[in-house]
Amino acid sequence: MYKKVLTKPDGRQLILYSRQPIAEDIQATSPGTDPPGTKTHLRWHPLRGEWVAYASHRQNRTFLPPPEYNPLAPTTDPAHPTELPPGEYDVAVFENRFPTLTEHAEEPAPAAIVPTRPGKGACEVVVFTQDPSSSLGALPLWHLEELLEVWADRYRELGKRDDIEYVMPFENRGVEVGVTLHHPHGQIYAYPFIPPVPARELAQQSAYFEEHGRGLLEDLIGEELKDGRRMIYTGERAVAWMPVFARYSYEVWIAPRRPAPSVADLDGAERADFARALKTVLLKYDKLWGKPFPYIMVFHQAPTDGNLHPEAHLHIEFYPAYRMPGRLKYLAGSEIGAGVFTADTLPEEKVKELQAIEVDL
Amino acid sequence: MYKKVLTKPDGRQLILYSRQPIAEDIQATSPGTDPPGTKTHLRWHPLRGEWVAYASHRQNRTFLPPPEYNPLAPTTDPAHPTELPPGEYDVAVFENRFPTLTEHAEEPAPAAIVPTRPGKGACEVVVFTQDPSSSLGALPLWHLEELLEVWADRYRELGKRDDIEYVMPFENRGVEVGVTLHHPHGQIYAYPFIPPVPARELAQQSAYFEEHGRGLLEDLIGEELKDGRRMIYTGERAVAWMPVFARYSYEVWIAPRRPAPSVADLDGAERADFARALKTVLLKYDKLWGKPFPYIMVFHQAPTDGNLHPEAHLHIEFYPAYRMPGRLKYLAGSEIGAGVFTADTLPEEKVKELQAIEVDL
Repeated sequence: MYKKVLTKPDGRQLILYSRQPIAEDIQATSPGTDPPGTKTHLRWHPLRGEWVAYASHRQNRTFLPPPEYNPLAPTTDPAHPTELPPGEYDVAVFENRFPTLTEHAEEPAPAAIVPTRPGKGACEVVVFTQDPSSSLGALPLWHLEELLEVWADRYRELGKRDDIEYVMPFENRGVEVGVTLHHPHGQIYAYPFIPPVPARELAQQSAYFEEHGRGLLEDLIGEELKDGRRMIYTGERAVAWMPVFARYSYEVWIAPRRPAPSVADLDGAERADFARALKTVLLKYDKLWGKPFPYIMVFHQAPTDGNLHPEAHLHIEFYPAYRMPGRLKYLAGSEIGAGVFTADTLPEEKVKELQAIEVDL
Repeated sequence: MYKKVLTKPDGRQLILYSRQPIAEDIQATSPGTDPPGTKTHLRWHPLRGEWVAYASHRQNRTFLPPPEYNPLAPTTDPAHPTELPPGEYDVAVFENRFPTLTEHAEEPAPAAIVPTRPGKGACEVVVFTQDPSSSLGALPLWHLEELLEVWADRYRELGKRDDIEYVMPFENRGVEVGVTLHHPHGQIYAYPFIPPVPARELAQQSAYFEEHGRGLLEDLIGEELKDGRRMIYTGERAVAWMPVFARYSYEVWIAPRRPAPSVADLDGAERADFARALKTVLLKYDKLWGKPFPYIMVFHQAPTDGNLHPEAHLHIEFYPAYRMPGRLKYLAGSEIGAGVFTADTLPEEKVKELQAIEVDL
């Protein structure tokens, strides 16, 4: 994989990745020259015991632009530059213009009532492909493998920073989950602390590891393989399945069989099989109702807080937006107010719909 | 307040509440005679360390019925009975026909991979008024006070049961949060454990109480009153404000000044002031954009697990669906995947919009 690091006219970083060497004279572009927002800070929520991020510069961010202007497509008209330059490359990563978290976050005004701190960290956009009409699942396997290398690269680079303790790649897909730009892309949020959801999962995994000397997810995968009813992809090095405790309809997890702590720990063969698992799931999703299947896809992996995390086991969790064709899953009183998910379907039944779909990688 | 407990033709309980004596000959009705669903169970999510509820009978529940049939309005045509009988009463409470949690939950099939247990507990519907075109905020103050007495009654009655450790009244309002029936109503979920969200809040409050010998929320309210910028209602016994650490745009909390642990601990004067605070907030919400303001409203109060909870302090939290006119707040990658809320606005700015609205109680 070739990689080229550039600086945009507004000071932000742009990184291009490619199978082929990248042209020497390629120049980073930007829709504007104003420096990116730095007015972002965190406030402590003392009842929930968690940080809340306030980034008021985000109010003005791009919202469903007309089709003639796609900020994630390579620039074609130099008078209206996009986020990406023209040229040969496969994947591009750049800092969000309106970041929720940024290295350059200002020290907030003195605290009132609760502790505050600057919104340090990073918010990056990962453009999966130059083709605006493609999608993650439509990419060829080599391209998905390259993307896994990109996520690994960002994990390593961001994880090195002192102000970053957790690197979380994710994709929000579909207007149903609030997506404003339809060009295939994901994001990476890099937090200055281990966020509550992974912190909880890691604590559970750590307690299990202490007790059994093995990984919780590793053992769960073993049980799912033995049971067999909820498997979606069973590869030599990676698996995809609907967990017996799935909270969402059509919820699917993907993981390497070996408890690799992060995407940066996958070897070439594991990456190849992980890419096959990923493509299998995505093709099944889109074939299920013959249209793009909206979801939130989240990476779970080891923190970059400087500690060893033998309990961590890389995995992707997919949270689909629909519970049935045309029926959204709303998170309401019980889910949001209590933290108790209510499902109308059993994973053993729901998984059959995905298993029945034949896909061609 | 008068109260009458009836049994529906399908075996479910119906409770009527009224300022006036309730007719002796009133008969409970039901849309059907099939007994309510009992196929509901819980599975343990070992990574999140929480229970997930599966109620497959809910797939068939009522969905946006045509206007001529409103199951929450009093029955007018005996050939098509609704959930409520005709007659004079103000508020009605009955068990959900398709409960996620129920006293009658069956023992699930033997566990596979993770622990399972029956979905014990209760799911009740609280019909706020007989008038289908009204709303919680449109009810007169005496009616809101009566509703607070109803919630207190249900807290006491459900809380007495051995299979219930936490009683949570809430209202989902608006299609934006998935509401299928538009007649003014809320729900009560009564859980067989303390759910993750209140468990977390109570743990934080408990740690504070241990350290300071005072309530966390009590002290936060004191600080908010001193600061003054985010107050929305400042009554002698109850207050409404936008917390300095609000996660949602227009998020408002309501609490009694005295740290009453539950709605059942409010005295008459506190109930009256709490009702004024509630009506003030609701009228401001609906006047903000001149249309019904969608939200999730959740009660936070002491568990009914048999232990003393001096750390608990009754409060309502409102989670609005919109962050700006016409712009929904989507919970996506950061909120759902990491548990980190990202706000585009500061509470100090957002609260001004609500403060500027004059309301007439």
